[in-house]
Amino acid sequence: MIERLCIIGVGLIGGSLACALREAGAVGEIVGCNRSPGSLARARELGVIDRGDSDPAEAVKEADVVVLAVPMGAMEGVFKQIASSLKAGAVITDAGSTKGHVVTAARSAFGEMPPFVVPGHPIAGTEQSGVEAAFPELYRDRRVILTPVAETDRNAVSRVRWMWEQAGAEVEEMSVEHHDEVLAATSHLPHMLAYCLVDALARMEESKEIFRFAAGGFRDFTRIASSDPRMWHDICFANRSELLKMLERFGDDLERLGAAIRNDDSDAVMDIFQRAKTARDRYCQIDPGSPE
Amino acid sequence: MIERLCIIGVGLIGGSLACALREAGAVGEIVGCNRSPGSLARARELGVIDRGDSDPAEAVKEADVVVLAVPMGAMEGVFKQIASSLKAGAVITDAGSTKGHVVTAARSAFGEMPPFVVPGHPIAGTEQSGVEAAFPELYRDRRVILTPVAETDRNAVSRVRWMWEQAGAEVEEMSVEHHDEVLAATSHLPHMLAYCLVDALARMEESKEIFRFAAGGFRDFTRIASSDPRMWHDICFANRSELLKMLERFGDDLERLGAAIRNDDSDAVMDIFQRAKTARDRYCQIDPGSPE
Repeated sequence: MIERLCIIGVGLIGGSLACALREAGAVGEIVGCNRSPGSLARARELGVIDRGDSDPAEAVKEADVVVLAVPMGAMEGVFKQIASSLKAGAVITDAGSTKGHVVTAARSAFGEMPPFVVPGHPIAGTEQSGVEAAFPELYRDRRVILTPVAETDRNAVSRVRWMWEQAGAEVEEMSVEHHDEVLAATSHLPHMLAYCLVDALARMEESKEIFRFAAGGFRDFTRIASSDPRMWHDICFANRSELLKMLERFGDDLERLGAAIRNDDSDAVMDIFQRAKTARDRYCQIDPGSPE
Repeated sequence: MIERLCIIGVGLIGGSLACALREAGAVGEIVGCNRSPGSLARARELGVIDRGDSDPAEAVKEADVVVLAVPMGAMEGVFKQIASSLKAGAVITDAGSTKGHVVTAARSAFGEMPPFVVPGHPIAGTEQSGVEAAFPELYRDRRVILTPVAETDRNAVSRVRWMWEQAGAEVEEMSVEHHDEVLAATSHLPHMLAYCLVDALARMEESKEIFRFAAGGFRDFTRIASSDPRMWHDICFANRSELLKMLERFGDDLERLGAAIRNDDSDAVMDIFQRAKTARDRYCQIDPGSPE
């Protein structure tokens, strides 16, 4: 049981965690903190939080667990704001999409990596954002990755693990580096491709009426291009080195595919498509998440 | 009313058309033609066709309308096989994803572009294939593009338009060139990106367990990579020049995005993401198709 939980950034991610923990009876009081008083009031109205404070230093007072669910670009600032008003024994975690950046932000804000900070990342979300989009099932059967570092206290890790399990998630641990590499591949790169594709088409649109003739596959493929631009802007820069590696690798692959088409290399094209189909079909079999 | 309809290639596309026309009472007898006797028998069992013949020259005899729903690579061969056994006054159309290739194939098979051949393309499909996946609603509120050329008989165009409207589709005409350019952008390029991405991840998979940590967005984004590899192989080569142009354009865009991230050009990254989100959100508002 978490007596008092403080969620900084009550949007889709933070709000859904609040809803899930409340539904599970895993939490006493939930204090929310948002920069905008409007969305804080909305979170109260919706019953997602019990009370709100727009000042992080005030919001975290007496909290047993603090969750940072803010854009990557805001992490370091929030760490600095809350550093001196945390209760002794409080555990801090976050929901950021890149972990190296969070560790750097914490080190910089606290002067060292505090043992009570547990970097974490729930692999869940929709292209929606804001507290209105929050729902308690968001994390059910989803994976949450924790990336403790050498300094991290094991009891703090257990506390955070327990919290996410109460929200229905399956918790795994891995290194910061492994996390950032894997997520660059499965999440950050696909978002870049979707944004880039829709932007390219939007620039062709005026003269060509491109979008009128898009099929259902296009809608699925580009769904993630409706995600919050500011959030993804921050992720890009926060995981810059891994993302640039993946972008370069993908660019090379795409060039190879283009060359195979140009050179009439039928076998090479079939190989790529067949390998991809096999992998994707297998992935759908093993994924415990959303049904096909 | 079409007295006798012949569908060559009774899979998802051809089979769904058969089902829709039968449901609409728009057709008398439906003759199916597949290379594999097994799938022809299956189509009969499922009631999708009335009778089958694995020889296209036999199947088209006495047919009033003939629909080619075969992979692009098979178009020319089928045109040649049926050329001398068509009934006088029969109308032929196809469901191929690239239209320049079909016109070339028809010219080559018939020695000239016959006035009774109406190139067409239903903008519909799923990542499934085969007659088992066919269903009568596939074309409801979907667009079908017809690309008649100078030689095409207007009555033949009207006949094909009527047929697709009976299946619930909205029919539009455009030039062959415009079609192939638009589809390269909205369909062929996204398929290349999805195949290429899943293949890249599959090659990283063994050492990294990449797919275990993929989120819901990844599933949507890569759904089209489960499409039939042979069909997409054929489309690649059939629309090679437009596709290569789009691949190159996209490669340049992706490089520009990479450069903006590398050079800390925050505004450039935000511009791309914001333009894309705006375009995609607007597209979802205007698309009459599947609900979000």
